[in-house]
Amino acid sequence: MQKQLLDHINFPEDLRQLSQDNLSALAQELREFIIDIVATKEGHLGASLGVVELTIALHYVFNTPEDLLIWDVGHQAYGHKILTGRKEIFDTNRQFGGISGFPKRDESEYDTFGVGHSSTSISAALGMAIASKVTGNLQKQHIAVIGDASIASGMAFEGLNHAGVTDANLLVILNDNAIGIDPSVGALKQYLTNVKKGTEKQDNIFEALNFDYSGPIDGHDLPKLIAELERLKSMSGPKFLHVITTKGKGLKQAEENQVKYHAPGKFNAKTGELIATSGLSQPPKFQDVFGETIVELAKENEKIVGITPAMPTGSSLKYMMEAIPDRAFDVGIAEQHAVTLAAGMATQGLIPFCNIYSTFLQRAYDQVIQDVALQKLPVIFCLDRAGLVGEDGATHHGVFDLAYLRCIPNLVIFAPRHAIELRNIMYTVQQGINFPIAIRYPRGRCTLLDWKKPFETIEIGKGECLKEGKDIAILSVGTTSNTVTSVLENNIDFEGVGHYDMRFVKPLDEDLLHTLFKRYKVIISIEDGTIVGGFGTAILEFANANDYKSKIEIMGVRDTFTEHGTINQLKSVNGIDEASLRKKLQKLIVRS
Amino acid sequence: MQKQLLDHINFPEDLRQLSQDNLSALAQELREFIIDIVATKEGHLGASLGVVELTIALHYVFNTPEDLLIWDVGHQAYGHKILTGRKEIFDTNRQFGGISGFPKRDESEYDTFGVGHSSTSISAALGMAIASKVTGNLQKQHIAVIGDASIASGMAFEGLNHAGVTDANLLVILNDNAIGIDPSVGALKQYLTNVKKGTEKQDNIFEALNFDYSGPIDGHDLPKLIAELERLKSMSGPKFLHVITTKGKGLKQAEENQVKYHAPGKFNAKTGELIATSGLSQPPKFQDVFGETIVELAKENEKIVGITPAMPTGSSLKYMMEAIPDRAFDVGIAEQHAVTLAAGMATQGLIPFCNIYSTFLQRAYDQVIQDVALQKLPVIFCLDRAGLVGEDGATHHGVFDLAYLRCIPNLVIFAPRHAIELRNIMYTVQQGINFPIAIRYPRGRCTLLDWKKPFETIEIGKGECLKEGKDIAILSVGTTSNTVTSVLENNIDFEGVGHYDMRFVKPLDEDLLHTLFKRYKVIISIEDGTIVGGFGTAILEFANANDYKSKIEIMGVRDTFTEHGTINQLKSVNGIDEASLRKKLQKLIVRS
Repeated sequence: MQKQLLDHINFPEDLRQLSQDNLSALAQELREFIIDIVATKEGHLGASLGVVELTIALHYVFNTPEDLLIWDVGHQAYGHKILTGRKEIFDTNRQFGGISGFPKRDESEYDTFGVGHSSTSISAALGMAIASKVTGNLQKQHIAVIGDASIASGMAFEGLNHAGVTDANLLVILNDNAIGIDPSVGALKQYLTNVKKGTEKQDNIFEALNFDYSGPIDGHDLPKLIAELERLKSMSGPKFLHVITTKGKGLKQAEENQVKYHAPGKFNAKTGELIATSGLSQPPKFQDVFGETIVELAKENEKIVGITPAMPTGSSLKYMMEAIPDRAFDVGIAEQHAVTLAAGMATQGLIPFCNIYSTFLQRAYDQVIQDVALQKLPVIFCLDRAGLVGEDGATHHGVFDLAYLRCIPNLVIFAPRHAIELRNIMYTVQQGINFPIAIRYPRGRCTLLDWKKPFETIEIGKGECLKEGKDIAILSVGTTSNTVTSVLENNIDFEGVGHYDMRFVKPLDEDLLHTLFKRYKVIISIEDGTIVGGFGTAILEFANANDYKSKIEIMGVRDTFTEHGTINQLKSVNGIDEASLRKKLQKLIVRS
Repeated sequence: MQKQLLDHINFPEDLRQLSQDNLSALAQELREFIIDIVATKEGHLGASLGVVELTIALHYVFNTPEDLLIWDVGHQAYGHKILTGRKEIFDTNRQFGGISGFPKRDESEYDTFGVGHSSTSISAALGMAIASKVTGNLQKQHIAVIGDASIASGMAFEGLNHAGVTDANLLVILNDNAIGIDPSVGALKQYLTNVKKGTEKQDNIFEALNFDYSGPIDGHDLPKLIAELERLKSMSGPKFLHVITTKGKGLKQAEENQVKYHAPGKFNAKTGELIATSGLSQPPKFQDVFGETIVELAKENEKIVGITPAMPTGSSLKYMMEAIPDRAFDVGIAEQHAVTLAAGMATQGLIPFCNIYSTFLQRAYDQVIQDVALQKLPVIFCLDRAGLVGEDGATHHGVFDLAYLRCIPNLVIFAPRHAIELRNIMYTVQQGINFPIAIRYPRGRCTLLDWKKPFETIEIGKGECLKEGKDIAILSVGTTSNTVTSVLENNIDFEGVGHYDMRFVKPLDEDLLHTLFKRYKVIISIEDGTIVGGFGTAILEFANANDYKSKIEIMGVRDTFTEHGTINQLKSVNGIDEASLRKKLQKLIVRS
């Protein structure tokens, strides 16, 4: 569809040629452009729709890319990408080889800082602002746009606390829409709500932290936004602008159902209706298996509590939050707090299931070590989105967890290969354990349709033979077991290949390993985590400690950052898809 | 010395028998007791002296251990330990086999939560308070005592933000003495100062976060403290008490020189005078080599900046803060912010040296991955206190870093074995690099007296032969190289043992390794980090990838948490001291 204004705008310098009167029409066109493409190509919708006017105003008022603009998390940055040279390739968003769904330094000089995890923007912008001071660039502007869910995270507070005692030329813009992916929570959110209502005096938290506070103003009112940004541009020192926006603005359904339209999948661009996926019954998502099972268990065991840092929908803890609200907690974007809160609960005999995405547990690494493992507290970590996550890309893959968790004493690490194993391990550990455990599982659906079986106890530290063999054995863990099974099934060439799901990355099933190393000449390990220090390395350490000389082949995620694409594309890139395993086996069989 | 009151007090129940009139005399005795023992046995002095009255008041008013008391960081907890059953063994504090310098759950039921790293107390106490609600213990009290330096850390804010929207029975006591180890910094500190001066209205930050705020009150005024605690005890929901104390209270020198008397070493208990250590000239501390060298380099290279999260004295960045204040930054206890601030600076062409203790970098793990390594920004991490740190014990050893950093793509890891190497690597990287690097070095003195040599460039990724040999080669890294050298020197039995300082844990010097694996039948790796996924494992991964079959022996820190003691005692426990290496070599030589 033709866009009278947007068609002529490729970079902010084009935008700055427009008169202010045209900007509102441009906002309309930009919104349509985003909706049209996300409707068919999928992606994050609501956040970017909410900041269309703010995006235009910022690039209109400030001299980007000389002035440095950082979008916290980056879910908000679609409009920014479209206005900064990527309009023509925006339809490759989040696709393999296409542009990233998040700002990325490699991609554009307008993307001043890579942002995928939340709450980093203030620190990064302050670093830039101090650098400008040190190098004598006193006119340069440095702007962080951060949402109200993200600013409540500890790291953002650390940035504010430091910025407030500098004279750095920093503008923090709070994009306050009362929601992250799920509705915002916490005392700061309540406070901001009071500020908006006018029940809180202007002498406020941000002024207490030495910021020059202005707002709240309507983030969809372009003339007001521009006037205020112009005013702030001429002021030096740390400044704070409170902007109120509506997530999903301009698409009725997205405004009304902000959680669903955060990243809605395909939808009808005209009506906003979601396009239903196949009516065939599908295996459940691991997330729903977790969500339904914790409710089932918690109804029987009143010591069970559930914790999520801001991912009730993504993790499916929302089921427990609805069914047993007194024992299910969304603590906001606060992974550090989530882990230590769980540790505190565990000291009092509760059984906390702390559900955190693998990539976000990196935010609470010290707390896992100090507050949980060192004290041997029985916290149950459910690590969602482990392994390659697909279109979210490099910032979101959960590929380091096995390596960074394996070196922590006292911690047990388990990976279920399907829904029944996830259910059973949850059932097992809630009966009472005297150690912490990390249960890691991937994003998406598992392979079993019929998964609600009676619970069975899983023996801690025991692997499982899935197929006997001779000469070559494959050791897998988690859902990579299914890749292996699929390759071995119905292939007569691979008849002699054994297959063992080790299930526990720590402790390893040493009895089983002794048997295997005595029986097999070649051992292949396969995992969807890094090959540096991960599961395969654990096998290697075992073999070395026990003087086994079998050949060991480690298959896993390479020691580089993996970009975005479908999970299968990314598995292929890393040589851990079915085709790669088939090739590897064929080579080994010929050789042996 | 006899203590009329303290002699009869072993547990808080004894304390509660006293009349209020006696408490001030008890405070005096407790203070003397702490001073007398720390004067000869060493330890953390100032923090515990500052909370003598608060400690007495808390155990007097609350029904510990039923009521749950958490001391943030735990530097403050000596008085608490003495009053809760550990008076007689307090002289074993921080010694091998003795009591820990920090609260520790294994040690006493009064130590409700292990605390070594700061800012965890609010989250842990809230977890306990929620647990009490869930289990119907509605009368139980939950108290977190946190310093003003620690409450400025992001994690504490996350805890407050969550607590404020609960009705949990939580009392947060801010022990405000305007200092952590070094003086507190940041906007919140300024704000608290204004509150104390009365220039800030009572409608304050903590009330904005839904806490019932009271104070500030004099933390050395026992009747006031007791009255206020009694009042708060009868209130439900989240409460905040702001207490003003003087760090080092009661020892003149400790009050006047709070940084030095944080952990002063031996001193005269009567006069407070520090006992001078040997007048002989000693090799410099690695810390001072860092501190002096960064000043030397930064004077020539105006792009260099230095960052420390609250450790200017400990890291010796204070030298740069004094010499070049515009480019040296103490950001407070804010490791996450420190790392991303450095990343932001690096995007603008600055050369940030970000100095963080190895154990505290665990707090910023995600930022190292996302903000630095993924973007390949040339941040220079100086990881101080790497390896076993001695008396601070399990919470402070820097033994996981090689494992948790090695799995991060793009990151170079280097360990200098002495002062000259530390100087030279700092010199090398400030010339400009296109990758991030972690330079890890231990607490304490290096081995060279004569260290201020002209700078030389170090070739990235190159190891060094320290001694040629045959049959057996030892591969070391960092200061463990000195252990090896010392064992091999002057021992004719070990003539055939080769010794190579690999220096770089990542990337490994593969050329050198190919040569060594071709030449030697036995390879021993030795490191002062965990054997799970660390340096030795890296050698193993190399050998496996290249099909080398030499025997590999990995020496390193065992896969358990190592407690406190002297560094040598702890090396011995882990089998990486000189005696252990000697024994290992003798065994191997006999066998071969």
